Amino acid sequence: MTKKTLVGNINPEVLTFTVGKDVMLDLVLAEADCIGTAAHVTMLSKMPVKPAVITATERKKIIKELVNVLARVREGSFEIDVSDQDVHMALERELTTTLGDLGKKVHTARSRNDQISVDLRLYGKEQLIQMMKEVLALSGELLRFAFKNSSVPMVGRTHLQPAMPSTVGLWASAHAESLMDDMTVLKAAFDFNDRCPLGAAAGFGVPAPIDRKLTSKLLGFAEPVHNVLYATSSRGKCETVILSAIAQVMLSLSRLAEDIILYSMPEFGYFSLPEEYCTGSSIMPQKKNPDVLELVRAKSSTVHGYLVATMGIVNGLPTGYNRDLQETKEPFLEGMHVTRGCLRIMATMVKKMKADKKALKAGFNSDIYAADKAMELVAKGVPFRDAYDHVKVHLKELKGQNPSEVLKNRNHLGAPGGLDFDFLAARIETMKQQVRGNSRRYHNAISKLLGVKYPSLERG
Amino acid sequence: MTKKTLVGNINPEVLTFTVGKDVMLDLVLAEADCIGTAAHVTMLSKMPVKPAVITATERKKIIKELVNVLARVREGSFEIDVSDQDVHMALERELTTTLGDLGKKVHTARSRNDQISVDLRLYGKEQLIQMMKEVLALSGELLRFAFKNSSVPMVGRTHLQPAMPSTVGLWASAHAESLMDDMTVLKAAFDFNDRCPLGAAAGFGVPAPIDRKLTSKLLGFAEPVHNVLYATSSRGKCETVILSAIAQVMLSLSRLAEDIILYSMPEFGYFSLPEEYCTGSSIMPQKKNPDVLELVRAKSSTVHGYLVATMGIVNGLPTGYNRDLQETKEPFLEGMHVTRGCLRIMATMVKKMKADKKALKAGFNSDIYAADKAMELVAKGVPFRDAYDHVKVHLKELKGQNPSEVLKNRNHLGAPGGLDFDFLAARIETMKQQVRGNSRRYHNAISKLLGVKYPSLERG
Amino acid sequence: MTKKTLVGNINPEVLTFTVGKDVMLDLVLAEADCIGTAAHVTMLSKMPVKPAVITATERKKIIKELVNVLARVREGSFEIDVSDQDVHMALERELTTTLGDLGKKVHTARSRNDQISVDLRLYGKEQLIQMMKEVLALSGELLRFAFKNSSVPMVGRTHLQPAMPSTVGLWASAHAESLMDDMTVLKAAFDFNDRCPLGAAAGFGVPAPIDRKLTSKLLGFAEPVHNVLYATSSRGKCETVILSAIAQVMLSLSRLAEDIILYSMPEFGYFSLPEEYCTGSSIMPQKKNPDVLELVRAKSSTVHGYLVATMGIVNGLPTGYNRDLQETKEPFLEGMHVTRGCLRIMATMVKKMKADKKALKAGFNSDIYAADKAMELVAKGVPFRDAYDHVKVHLKELKGQNPSEVLKNRNHLGAPGGLDFDFLAARIETMKQQVRGNSRRYHNAISKLLGVKYPSLERG
Amino acid sequence: MTKKTLVGNINPEVLTFTVGKDVMLDLVLAEADCIGTAAHVTMLSKMPVKPAVITATERKKIIKELVNVLARVREGSFEIDVSDQDVHMALERELTTTLGDLGKKVHTARSRNDQISVDLRLYGKEQLIQMMKEVLALSGELLRFAFKNSSVPMVGRTHLQPAMPSTVGLWASAHAESLMDDMTVLKAAFDFNDRCPLGAAAGFGVPAPIDRKLTSKLLGFAEPVHNVLYATSSRGKCETVILSAIAQVMLSLSRLAEDIILYSMPEFGYFSLPEEYCTGSSIMPQKKNPDVLELVRAKSSTVHGYLVATMGIVNGLPTGYNRDLQETKEPFLEGMHVTRGCLRIMATMVKKMKADKKALKAGFNSDIYAADKAMELVAKGVPFRDAYDHVKVHLKELKGQNPSEVLKNRNHLGAPGGLDFDFLAARIETMKQQVRGNSRRYHNAISKLLGVKYPSLERG
Repeated sequence: MTKKTLVGNINPEVLTFTVGKDVMLDLVLAEADCIGTAAHVTMLSKMPVKPAVITATERKKIIKELVNVLARVREGSFEIDVSDQDVHMALERELTTTLGDLGKKVHTARSRNDQISVDLRLYGKEQLIQMMKEVLALSGELLRFAFKNSSVPMVGRTHLQPAMPSTVGLWASAHAESLMDDMTVLKAAFDFNDRCPLGAAAGFGVPAPIDRKLTSKLLGFAEPVHNVLYATSSRGKCETVILSAIAQVMLSLSRLAEDIILYSMPEFGYFSLPEEYCTGSSIMPQKKNPDVLELVRAKSSTVHGYLVATMGIVNGLPTGYNRDLQETKEPFLEGMHVTRGCLRIMATMVKKMKADKKALKAGFNSDIYAADKAMELVAKGVPFRDAYDHVKVHLKELKGQNPSEVLKNRNHLGAPGGLDFDFLAARIETMKQQVRGNSRRYHNAISKLLGVKYPSLERG
Repeated sequence: MTKKTLVGNINPEVLTFTVGKDVMLDLVLAEADCIGTAAHVTMLSKMPVKPAVITATERKKIIKELVNVLARVREGSFEIDVSDQDVHMALERELTTTLGDLGKKVHTARSRNDQISVDLRLYGKEQLIQMMKEVLALSGELLRFAFKNSSVPMVGRTHLQPAMPSTVGLWASAHAESLMDDMTVLKAAFDFNDRCPLGAAAGFGVPAPIDRKLTSKLLGFAEPVHNVLYATSSRGKCETVILSAIAQVMLSLSRLAEDIILYSMPEFGYFSLPEEYCTGSSIMPQKKNPDVLELVRAKSSTVHGYLVATMGIVNGLPTGYNRDLQETKEPFLEGMHVTRGCLRIMATMVKKMKADKKALKAGFNSDIYAADKAMELVAKGVPFRDAYDHVKVHLKELKGQNPSEVLKNRNHLGAPGGLDFDFLAARIETMKQQVRGNSRRYHNAISKLLGVKYPSLERG
Repeated sequence: MTKKTLVGNINPEVLTFTVGKDVMLDLVLAEADCIGTAAHVTMLSKMPVKPAVITATERKKIIKELVNVLARVREGSFEIDVSDQDVHMALERELTTTLGDLGKKVHTARSRNDQISVDLRLYGKEQLIQMMKEVLALSGELLRFAFKNSSVPMVGRTHLQPAMPSTVGLWASAHAESLMDDMTVLKAAFDFNDRCPLGAAAGFGVPAPIDRKLTSKLLGFAEPVHNVLYATSSRGKCETVILSAIAQVMLSLSRLAEDIILYSMPEFGYFSLPEEYCTGSSIMPQKKNPDVLELVRAKSSTVHGYLVATMGIVNGLPTGYNRDLQETKEPFLEGMHVTRGCLRIMATMVKKMKADKKALKAGFNSDIYAADKAMELVAKGVPFRDAYDHVKVHLKELKGQNPSEVLKNRNHLGAPGGLDFDFLAARIETMKQQVRGNSRRYHNAISKLLGVKYPSLERG
Repeated sequence: MTKKTLVGNINPEVLTFTVGKDVMLDLVLAEADCIGTAAHVTMLSKMPVKPAVITATERKKIIKELVNVLARVREGSFEIDVSDQDVHMALERELTTTLGDLGKKVHTARSRNDQISVDLRLYGKEQLIQMMKEVLALSGELLRFAFKNSSVPMVGRTHLQPAMPSTVGLWASAHAESLMDDMTVLKAAFDFNDRCPLGAAAGFGVPAPIDRKLTSKLLGFAEPVHNVLYATSSRGKCETVILSAIAQVMLSLSRLAEDIILYSMPEFGYFSLPEEYCTGSSIMPQKKNPDVLELVRAKSSTVHGYLVATMGIVNGLPTGYNRDLQETKEPFLEGMHVTRGCLRIMATMVKKMKADKKALKAGFNSDIYAADKAMELVAKGVPFRDAYDHVKVHLKELKGQNPSEVLKNRNHLGAPGGLDFDFLAARIETMKQQVRGNSRRYHNAISKLLGVKYPSLERG
């Protein structure tokens, strides 16, 4: 017994296994599939062949139908059947149902290989834009928290042991800068992704005068991937580049989460969250747990696992499409989804978090001033290593001091007293503008392609 | 605005984030949760306190209701709501709805921490039993294929280059033995998992005379985890042990898949699969692709990713329950699910696979007999290294031979002509008996506990 | 320009690249290579062919020379040259230098593939024996620390927040039990490893009546790997099995390290280490840092990285030897080396560690008794969930209590007051006996094979 | 018994464990340590304090001595002792030996934390510059090979099965473009790394008016890391960013290696390597194995393992220096070393590789023209899906064709007949110029700082 598909009869057990979760996962890509198809069809309608594969009138019909499907995707009424195998065949089936023979023409001069590649890159682009906005939003919250508490003393630690006087401002803006740094990597991933694989077909091009620069432009890409074989082989690779970038974001979040978990233990009490942002225990009535932070910390490893899976799949894979690549879809989509969820909830947590000045001050003991004492001796001309040795022997004689006073001596660039909040805020603002620019350029291209305002789908 | 849960009011955004996919994932564990609860309640009913927390009659009532819920779980009519947070609270809500105050008693002297731990171990046990059966089934298919083609010549390769004469029998039974070896590791994971954490509560025990040996016995475990803190800390760890074991199975499958992919290329044509076990292309009408095998190869990396995620989560985690552990649930459940799916489909593939004797023989050239030639010289008293050097210089003089004749000289244990199929088949049979024994012991215990035949739920 | 090797002329750049670190790494395997060669030669001398490949007298000569080499390996005077490529060719060169044509015979009927496989399994066996001893030694130290502080109160935490009253005894013996559990996995790895690949040659056996059961027995293995192709393919796989097992040990150590790092912060001060077991800072004279523990925590990730590397290499590798496997050598050898170093230093740390009873008691606040209060109400007949709700509303009324008194109510199996130290100590002792048995059996076999006492090499 | 170090007395076992391989690994960083120290000292000499910590004359003395040490590092006569612990203390000891009290001053206002961070970033910068040159060199070789064989037909495959007509030019330039794409990611890593952490001291700055912009400029960095706490926390993170980038390079290489391994099997014979670039077997005199390629394929997983280790170490680490970070040193240094070795050897392999036109053409069968046939029907007005169905039913009727003729129809951008070699070569050239610019700017800065020509160390 076999099951009929658009591309042949398949044993049902095999069909179920090979389709896997695609029936569900591909729904996420349906919007991109409509957009990619619109560009492909537009290009076909301009291809210099006679008779035209698709006429200008036919193009309009198809695009109108694609916008309809797109609207249904958003409503949740578009479905993929197992016998479709994937979103591409489901869309072709859909178009053939509504447009008849015209629907059978849309797959001319393309393959599901370049189609899925372009879908993933379009989807990835939108996700990266949103993610970068969220990274900057969280950085902004951290910076606000830092500014608000810029001179609140906090024990600076190395090896988790008290080390030197520091401030809440330094602590919070360190996390902000980590995320701002991640933007470099996200931006590189965005650029890596911003090239169009369409027209590669199965990886060897097509015997037809397609215009790959046109489809690339219609879809708002920077340029086409050049080599068609690489265009399909870059699938999977592109995903690992993006997952590597978001793994950096998760590393930043995991450390922020760890710090807050630690410093909201009652033995520190530095930071606290409103009760309704914590969760309770089923057996211990008194519990108020930082579950959100623990989950964020854990989800960093989840995303690393996705990266490892994807790298493992791509590693040593012969060039030319291999079905292995389907298996990169879930870690890729989930990786972006998980990371964005963490970014948003952390922005909420930081916004709601309070610093307890009294508790923060209580953490200071006299030892923490040892390095300052050594530097005092240095100022008097003692070579540093001798000053260090002297203080080490006379540790007991160190006196408690007012941390705020001591902190006043740390004014150099980036030190607790030398943080340039205006500079940091300006850096965030510049990056925001860049992201908005990318977003606008992309959405304008798609709006023009579809003839409706995108992403809202309002007709002009 | 907050949302009421059984354990406190929570901000809805936080609730959604912390619950995550548990509403869906926990359904898989609902059966185990009913069983674990039945054992706990039975133990409570025998606890030497006055008044009894739960009477013998009450116990019967609860267990009857648990069997009802269990039946509904199987029908698909049991549901977990976001405000339940997880299966445990959903079940408690369910029992409280049907049994009133009696339902509120079932959580006495336990915590969701030990409850989820026992659920995961029960579920893992059932999955491992099924998986071991599937590993042995695939080994059996491979052995049958090997036996059937035991003397069919096949080029033996190292570095993928032709090396020495070999047989299809050697090739197929090598894969069988790899899987049989994996049973050692699966068995160790089974034993690691086969200890009962129930009674650990939140990791510090309870101020009540609970009988942990009794619950362990009721649930068919080998013994309780001793230390209650370790009982909760072993969550996550136990999952990594099991994922490590199934990662071995996937390694074996990935290599089997790789071999068949390679050797079913037309340039070899050694093995072939019926058309309906392959899939086609959307653009190339002639294609017959080994998609199943490619997906199996890729899924091995997927499972490795799950292992990495889980190890990363557990690594360096402070003892005592941390919410991070929730994040190990999906990779654990998915890891077992993915692996079992691969095992089953590979058994089908191997069963359907055909060896093409002509193509296999065509692969032999004269070079492949070089080592045999050297051994001939050795037999005449030439030191091996001199014989080797002699043959290397006179490679061109090597003659083509009948591979079957040459193979006759390889009769020692485990060589192409020295495979002991009876021994291997007996080894599989012994392992099957062991697995069946484990399965029977476990199901008998649960049948006794629930008072209905398990897993069928037929009432006696 | 090329460079002459025993197996052909090679471009020097290629030779350097392919040999890689083997010149250094293989020195570690030189001892195993001598032993494996002794077994192979002994078997050859008993092979039923005429003329004998190696006579009984020749066997004695070779083995005597192998013992000499072995002694030189231990002195550090045995060297591997780049043109040797590896330890096997270095040893053959050595034997040929001292024994002439007799040396050229030792490689009869074997390949470097089965030779390196047997070397790695012999080395792995010795390492696992030592490692298991070290795991049990550290478990023993933890148990002693637990017993000594069995009734010292310690705040039990979940989510790092205070949860329930607990003890240092529970905490320390939880870590001990984790390591004892790891022994299950180590034991499985030991058994997996305990089969002899010798005689597989390049993976296809040899055209000679070799006796693989004999070599297996001579080397103290449980039995031969059966299928010769699998015997070579199991290289890499065997390493991942062992690395998975030791990754578990490292997970246990990482959590122990994390706990001590946390609880030796001055805000807790629960545990302390002598000053000379900590390290200082180059700039802060007062610092006393738990560097050892931080490194142990980090090295757990190092070992996970080794596991990922090795799994990645083996994944999807075609059967038959591939040079990729050479690259598993370093992570395998380093993984075992790193783990053993951590085990030994942690035993020292635990031995030197002191618990500060006053600081431990100071951590208790009244909230921690909430669950106990709920259980008190349960004892009076209140359904648990109602008792829980009641206590939650009246948290402020909870009174501080003497933790030692409260702990007395936790007497059930494995609870703070119910730890069975005799049972745990007996479990360790049983495992020690097993390891010693394995060690003895192995060393006796080698002593018999070499004709000198092994491992001491004293002549009888 | 303890051992004296510059920063306190330490138990020798602890010292050995904590120092680990640093005595060896740090030698690689000695050059960067001298350079970083030169910048720090120069800045100290300009610090507006009285008395000056270091005078202009003293600065000259120190820098002269640093250049001497640097020369000794290159000769191999600079050594690190275990009691030094690391390169920083070794250098301080060295300077103190030769310069007396002046040597004791160099550590004023810095910590080993910012010192090692700056060392790693300087070293990483140099390595990335060299690596980018090597990536471009290999891309160039691949492009030359592609150009030379641009019209040589080669079976294009998907799922490894013959799919469509293609060329060696497409195949080779696909690999070239993959590497060129990697340059995006390497460039982002370079920029991420190109910020100066010096002056962060232990992560909290120093109570002195240091000029962090000056040291940044002296060392040729783009700008300082702003926040001093982030400056130290970015250690480890920066390494993971670089390792992620080079993991991409290794992914590209692993696929190139896999392709050549496959297509140099005698069943294909598409590509061949000179005998001296292959290695032989110890038992099979005829073998000619692609060991280099197998090792490159494997080393990709090795590098992934390094990435996983490093990410695991950084993940969830509390801010502020933790000794865990030391453990990122080896995977970081080794990762760069391994990748560069693979790049260089692959350039050699590609240079030496020959394409066998006859063998390449022999791979074509008639099925491969199926998609072209369907496109012919489309050109006649048949909807694509109908054309596809028609061809699928009439596969047997397809005729063999001259692949070169068929390929002529694939002229669009990036297709086998539409590769724009000038465009690709120009892209490589542009990137080369950028890398050279970065290299020049960096070396000029260091030359100016040291007062000698860098990297040659010739005195002006």
